[in-house]
Amino acid sequence: MTENRFAQMNCSLARTASITGDAWTILILRDVFVGVNRFDDLAADLGISRNLLTTRLRQLVEDGILETVAYSEHPPRNRYVLSPAGKELVPPLLALMAWGDRWKSGEGREPLIIRHRKCRSRTTPQVCCSECGEPLVADAIRILPGPGGSVGPGTAIVGQRLMDRYRRR
Amino acid sequence: MTENRFAQMNCSLARTASITGDAWTILILRDVFVGVNRFDDLAADLGISRNLLTTRLRQLVEDGILETVAYSEHPPRNRYVLSPAGKELVPPLLALMAWGDRWKSGEGREPLIIRHRKCRSRTTPQVCCSECGEPLVADAIRILPGPGGSVGPGTAIVGQRLMDRYRRR
Repeated sequence: MTENRFAQMNCSLARTASITGDAWTILILRDVFVGVNRFDDLAADLGISRNLLTTRLRQLVEDGILETVAYSEHPPRNRYVLSPAGKELVPPLLALMAWGDRWKSGEGREPLIIRHRKCRSRTTPQVCCSECGEPLVADAIRILPGPGGSVGPGTAIVGQRLMDRYRRR
Repeated sequence: MTENRFAQMNCSLARTASITGDAWTILILRDVFVGVNRFDDLAADLGISRNLLTTRLRQLVEDGILETVAYSEHPPRNRYVLSPAGKELVPPLLALMAWGDRWKSGEGREPLIIRHRKCRSRTTPQVCCSECGEPLVADAIRILPGPGGSVGPGTAIVGQRLMDRYRRR
């Protein structure tokens, strides 16, 4: 569920979290991605109340993540598809799923497997460096203030600290 | 916030979402990763109520994502650090941040930049195929039932549909 509070923080992770920081939303995106994309199917699949589902779908359309496609005119019925921005959310969500496979499901007990059509292999989504291609690990990453960085709500201390750390170098 | 409901679904993404499907939790992990890791600093940075922060931190410790390290005995005070599982959550969260840079902040207005110590470049976290190394894109991914797949709460239709799709091949 988008909470304006997070969308308005000057932090790209907070802005993303204003959309993906909600477990129902993540599962709706999962379902739409694999083709479960009609209201009744989503409700039945997830066991979510129709009210909550309505709110989440409306918000995802408003946020530009889902688009509606009419599949019936009488009665009027829509199915939901991922927008270009929504499609680009899929790989990060699959990286979260891979984390869950590793830490919450366990090897050999993965509920889903992912095949990469391009190389025809079963793949594990890995977060890699755009420059050298190596997998990124937390200890090899340095966070620095960016061109749009500022100190404000949600970045009151972290923003200042990063700027101090940067200046000291 | 962990909702047991999601943790108990037979889906690795739902299990991860039981932890990361909460915007405050995501921002707490962001702060701890960059070194804002004491209760008072977290509260001041995020503008989160102390009650909510206490709940989230307790849950993250219980879920094995954060660990406590005493920095004072009188009075007893802890700071929070990422566990090994928590460190492995960082790259997927950075991939979400990169999505936010692209779709919500915009080029040249990134609040933070990321440097990869290993190759010394400014990096954009990308989700890549473990086998061929190419960036994964939604249209080139096929989801199939895995060894631990089942039809149940949260996978009532999607589980069945994936199994049907798989059998037809």
